[in-house]
Amino acid sequence: MPKIVDHDQRRVELVDATWRIIAERGLDGATMRDIAAEAGFANGALKPYFPTKDRLLDFAFEHIFDQTNRRMRASTEGLSGLAALRAYCHEILPLDEEKVSEARVAIAFWQKALRDPAKAAVHERSMEQWRVALAELLEETGLRQGVGLGDAVGAIMDLVLGAQITATLSPTHHTPRQLVAQLDCLVSALVEGASA
Amino acid sequence: MPKIVDHDQRRVELVDATWRIIAERGLDGATMRDIAAEAGFANGALKPYFPTKDRLLDFAFEHIFDQTNRRMRASTEGLSGLAALRAYCHEILPLDEEKVSEARVAIAFWQKALRDPAKAAVHERSMEQWRVALAELLEETGLRQGVGLGDAVGAIMDLVLGAQITATLSPTHHTPRQLVAQLDCLVSALVEGASA
Repeated sequence: MPKIVDHDQRRVELVDATWRIIAERGLDGATMRDIAAEAGFANGALKPYFPTKDRLLDFAFEHIFDQTNRRMRASTEGLSGLAALRAYCHEILPLDEEKVSEARVAIAFWQKALRDPAKAAVHERSMEQWRVALAELLEETGLRQGVGLGDAVGAIMDLVLGAQITATLSPTHHTPRQLVAQLDCLVSALVEGASA
Repeated sequence: MPKIVDHDQRRVELVDATWRIIAERGLDGATMRDIAAEAGFANGALKPYFPTKDRLLDFAFEHIFDQTNRRMRASTEGLSGLAALRAYCHEILPLDEEKVSEARVAIAFWQKALRDPAKAAVHERSMEQWRVALAELLEETGLRQGVGLGDAVGAIMDLVLGAQITATLSPTHHTPRQLVAQLDCLVSALVEGASA
């Protein structure tokens, strides 16, 4: 019987094995051959799944987005209100090495998305998913009087995206305590009953 | 008499003429010849001043940083307290086409800085200059009880850097009104007497 290969599953395995290499070395700094070798695959193993490095970056971005969303579901389970809002945002903030690596992939993706409408559309769809979730969380916690829901969501998005830059490029300003405190400064302004 | 050329001055002129082309086309999307041609210079005009595209990006980043600082000095002149703080931040927020172009250069620079310690050092020195200024402005306005100065500065930096991503990649969420309102959400949390 011919061996049946689940190509989607294989692609996920390959991305899972290579995204940290992309995060560490960047797409400019590594050939597909380098990336395959460093992940322990034969030369040519990636090509059938990712014809170009650019496609590999697309899948790497979707992979880190999906794994962030899985973490969000796990860490907000059973929580509500302010605790759920904070837990959700903490999965975007680069609070550990894994999430700092995700930030490095995101920055590489942003730079390409500036001139690639397909990537920009994937990014915007992903960010919209987070905005919708944040709006629901904020509606549940209740906003302070005078704060608009759209502005509150936008401010949180700006802050958590900017933290990707701070965490990767300003190492002395990105301890988990600092990033969480920075978020709390904002949340206290938005949410009734939260204090800085 | 031999023609005397001020090389530093000439370099500034060349960067000033080319940084928007870099913002628009990116470094990947244009050769030095393309950039020179589009700026109306002879092929080879850039080379003596910027031996590589990578060096041109360094100078472009420093150029947009300097011009942002010049705008900050102009727009905060005669202001104090909250008005000065807001005016300062508004020069970083991508509130017009010029500043959106600056954001595009910054994103390209961030991506390179992830793997280039010299660029990361330039970035960190630049951001530290803004942090010091923000701390002075916040000390002048007075912080709400319980808000730490370092956290307040960090939160503003995250938000204004994240706005560079929002403004370039999430076009429906970056009207000047939206970006200013997002900043005001945060400022109201930090500063005594400011309300959202």
